[in-house]
Amino acid sequence: MMLDTSKNILIVGLGLIGGSYAKALRKLGFKISAITLNQEDIDFAVENGIIDEGFTKPSEEAIGNAELVIFALYPKVFKEWISKYQNFFKPGTLITDVTGVKSSVVYEIQEMLRPDVEFIAAHPMAGKEVYGVQNSDPKIFHGANYIVTPTEKNTESAIRDCLELGRLMGFERVSVLTPEKHDEMIGFVSQLTHCIAVSLMNCYDGEKLQDYTGDSFRDLTRIARINDEMWSELFLLNKETLLDQMDKFLSEFGKLRKTLENGDRKTMREMMRISTARRSLFDKK
Amino acid sequence: MMLDTSKNILIVGLGLIGGSYAKALRKLGFKISAITLNQEDIDFAVENGIIDEGFTKPSEEAIGNAELVIFALYPKVFKEWISKYQNFFKPGTLITDVTGVKSSVVYEIQEMLRPDVEFIAAHPMAGKEVYGVQNSDPKIFHGANYIVTPTEKNTESAIRDCLELGRLMGFERVSVLTPEKHDEMIGFVSQLTHCIAVSLMNCYDGEKLQDYTGDSFRDLTRIARINDEMWSELFLLNKETLLDQMDKFLSEFGKLRKTLENGDRKTMREMMRISTARRSLFDKK
Repeated sequence: MMLDTSKNILIVGLGLIGGSYAKALRKLGFKISAITLNQEDIDFAVENGIIDEGFTKPSEEAIGNAELVIFALYPKVFKEWISKYQNFFKPGTLITDVTGVKSSVVYEIQEMLRPDVEFIAAHPMAGKEVYGVQNSDPKIFHGANYIVTPTEKNTESAIRDCLELGRLMGFERVSVLTPEKHDEMIGFVSQLTHCIAVSLMNCYDGEKLQDYTGDSFRDLTRIARINDEMWSELFLLNKETLLDQMDKFLSEFGKLRKTLENGDRKTMREMMRISTARRSLFDKK
Repeated sequence: MMLDTSKNILIVGLGLIGGSYAKALRKLGFKISAITLNQEDIDFAVENGIIDEGFTKPSEEAIGNAELVIFALYPKVFKEWISKYQNFFKPGTLITDVTGVKSSVVYEIQEMLRPDVEFIAAHPMAGKEVYGVQNSDPKIFHGANYIVTPTEKNTESAIRDCLELGRLMGFERVSVLTPEKHDEMIGFVSQLTHCIAVSLMNCYDGEKLQDYTGDSFRDLTRIARINDEMWSELFLLNKETLLDQMDKFLSEFGKLRKTLENGDRKTMREMMRISTARRSLFDKK
């Protein structure tokens, strides 16, 4: 078992998620260091006991002591980082990530990675509408899903350690999916729903609607506050799968529209009954 | 001012909304009677102090003493009721309703109504995913919108009384819209969002998704539990307006889809920024 607290953990990218990982893991007794761009974030994190030490640049000193390295970067920056700085890893280092898309990241990273370092990919399905280490909070993991997406290149022990990492940080459900299944699922439950919320908010100038919106509209558009830099990158990296999910939704929405246009109340009610039955299952969980 | 507590109020249709009206108004000191189909509901309401007395059938006795009659029925049943039983109203009676669509109801009712009785339409934008007088609760009005939709046939005093009724029951925002503007707004913020939630739940068999859904998917589909009898009637009664709103949404959703297909990150990010800015305005309220 690799995850005993004598191990050094390095977090690369100390934002909301990186910072929440740091808080959760340091509380468990691990030594936590971090590499992140801004000295201010490091100062804040050290002063608040979130990390033990921090660096603004990759170096032998910053990287060479870590047994586990967690990447909390945007996907493209993550790939560039690995190609530039992987020579600093200690032999036998395990690396993992928090990236929201998998197929377009995992294989490429594993392909370019040194043979004595293993990358096991993971996606913590947690977040907030605020950013930065200053807002980090491991409570966002409670009740949330943590998904490990191994490939044929991964060892059993790395998969086990990565699952254990999710459990230790307090995720409610920890599971394994292939990168492809992960992307299909995330395309539907997360990316498609963000597309819907964004499209809804683009329909009208918001001001005249504010006075009349009920809870349903507010709930549906909560996620319309979106980090455009990150989400546009994630959408484009999951392009084909997300297009499929958008088309699947368009097909059902179009079917419902047709029942309205044709006054076909029978089919309309049937769709509503299916929807009600399926959604009721959720509330039982 | 008509709304002093010496007045008798009759509620026709004692379900979730009718029951919540009864509770809110009886607490203020009004005498409340009700007409509803099931004797069980009347017994429950009398035993629990929700109404003073109840009737299962319209009659001179049940209707002739009321100065204010509130209809909490489905739209078509409401119209039939008026055409059959309006002879029982006392001259000078004011009637109002809670119907979720307006243009297709208000004009028709006003057209057929006796000249010595006035109908002022209103829509309490409140609800729950449960039904019946047993679940009624005036707290659902707190924080909610109450919209009065007068026509040229309405008197100033009836509009004033109807607005006052909303305030007395504890609605947070009480306002006036034309029936047409109401239907356009409700088509967008309520009916369209229900169409989206229903379509989403029809995309996939729910079971495999339950393990992976995050908060955003749950929020977005909460309203997918829907009373198919009521909502299909409301959709069809607002058909042209709702079709317009669905097409407006389809146009924006299609635009976003196109940015993805074309790899047009610049326009995609622009749509996300518009969405974020507009949604942020909501949270300030």
